[in-house]
Amino acid sequence: MTIPTDYLRHTDASAARAARAAYRAGRVEPTCGIAPGFTQANMIVLPRDWAFEFLLYTQRNPKPCPVLDVSDPGMVETKLAPGADLRTDLPLYRIWRDGKLVEETADASAAWAERDDLVAFLIGCSFTFETAMRDAGIEIRHMTDKGNVPMYLTDQPCRPAGRLRGNMVVSMRPVPAGRVADAATISARFPAVHGAPVHVGAPEDIGIKDLARPDFGEAVRIEPGEVPVFWACGVTPQAAVTASGVPFAITHAPGHMLITDIPDTAYHV
Amino acid sequence: MTIPTDYLRHTDASAARAARAAYRAGRVEPTCGIAPGFTQANMIVLPRDWAFEFLLYTQRNPKPCPVLDVSDPGMVETKLAPGADLRTDLPLYRIWRDGKLVEETADASAAWAERDDLVAFLIGCSFTFETAMRDAGIEIRHMTDKGNVPMYLTDQPCRPAGRLRGNMVVSMRPVPAGRVADAATISARFPAVHGAPVHVGAPEDIGIKDLARPDFGEAVRIEPGEVPVFWACGVTPQAAVTASGVPFAITHAPGHMLITDIPDTAYHV
Repeated sequence: MTIPTDYLRHTDASAARAARAAYRAGRVEPTCGIAPGFTQANMIVLPRDWAFEFLLYTQRNPKPCPVLDVSDPGMVETKLAPGADLRTDLPLYRIWRDGKLVEETADASAAWAERDDLVAFLIGCSFTFETAMRDAGIEIRHMTDKGNVPMYLTDQPCRPAGRLRGNMVVSMRPVPAGRVADAATISARFPAVHGAPVHVGAPEDIGIKDLARPDFGEAVRIEPGEVPVFWACGVTPQAAVTASGVPFAITHAPGHMLITDIPDTAYHV
Repeated sequence: MTIPTDYLRHTDASAARAARAAYRAGRVEPTCGIAPGFTQANMIVLPRDWAFEFLLYTQRNPKPCPVLDVSDPGMVETKLAPGADLRTDLPLYRIWRDGKLVEETADASAAWAERDDLVAFLIGCSFTFETAMRDAGIEIRHMTDKGNVPMYLTDQPCRPAGRLRGNMVVSMRPVPAGRVADAATISARFPAVHGAPVHVGAPEDIGIKDLARPDFGEAVRIEPGEVPVFWACGVTPQAAVTASGVPFAITHAPGHMLITDIPDTAYHV
């Protein structure tokens, strides 16, 4: 049975490993453009008591929350990046208590040590289809300008699961009007990493008041003739943590992802 | 955000509803070929205490266990078939105790009433891509011969999750050698309902000793020039119930599925 980890056998993942080693040593940077071609993942870590409801939340909201791997309770490893330590190998973490962001840190070891039953969920990231879009000649503006992708909290509710609820977060890429269909079909081939756009144009229609002021990441230029295209975003679980008052969570900081050993092509259907 | 239930708004699902009403009234039959064009689903119902581990099992084994919907604990409804009662609207159920099949029944109400925390998982079925394969001129032998699809327990282990483990079950369709690639690419476009084949030819390589003696369903003719093609099968959870000694479960009987209101095309990517 083909699973993405089968791809590890014939892949030289040294660039991914080197990035994780740098983050373990303390380096902090957005991961956009780092180790190109390797899939990056969002992370959310929750107590076992919340694990079923969160996994159900992802099943009910697969566009923003496509699960790539789940750790066993108490473990800090993933099959997607052999040898990685999820407590230290992302560049920047957020610690949440009672739904509130209380700390950003480059090392989540202390927070992780507070409980012995934490479950880590790794969730697909739209960076994965950016390689295919660039190969098709579609400029990725935030890569051109060397910034973080802009992300917005929408007014679109996710389908609740038990105690969990919240609105969807989206990422935005400006696309020339003549390439919007290509951007849609190319990203649709990667359903495990958010897939096709959820919205094209009309940001006000999903509760986005000002594209120049994203809720996460950085704003990007939009040139004449370009349309804002919105993809479901793996920061959506953080919005659920806030909306639901989850008592304890560790997440990645937006744009500061886990770089896995899995090549982006593994998620092409 | 597009979810399969969006398709309900413009679909006349009266054929699906009529089938469910007949099963509720006591009719028993395999659902292959019934209400063509409507997605059918495998079902497994477990106590809340097993729900996280099972959902994790499906996440780790997405080819045999693609989840289409999960009920809230204690509920008997699904968004995929408004008005359906999961206790009565499948034609045939199996009741499992301590990993053993103890009963087949056309009405699961009594078993369901034993606990108030049961969670129902609905899992994709390869019948969904059969319509697309037939439209492409690929004969579906078990439909031509009006039987149930043959299913086999393989020696291929699924990735465990907590207390759950077991081998993969596959369905088999004989395909002319010149159409095997088409069968693979067409079914690959339906990743939510098992997707591409897991194995082509060489049944002994996955522990199948005799194609004429399936573990579930009925054997089918294989003509000269045809190759047995194997798809991951939604009966795999029943193999896990047995292998793991799950204390209590309700499932559909193999080939006797829930017929939903969702058209097959909803799962085309």
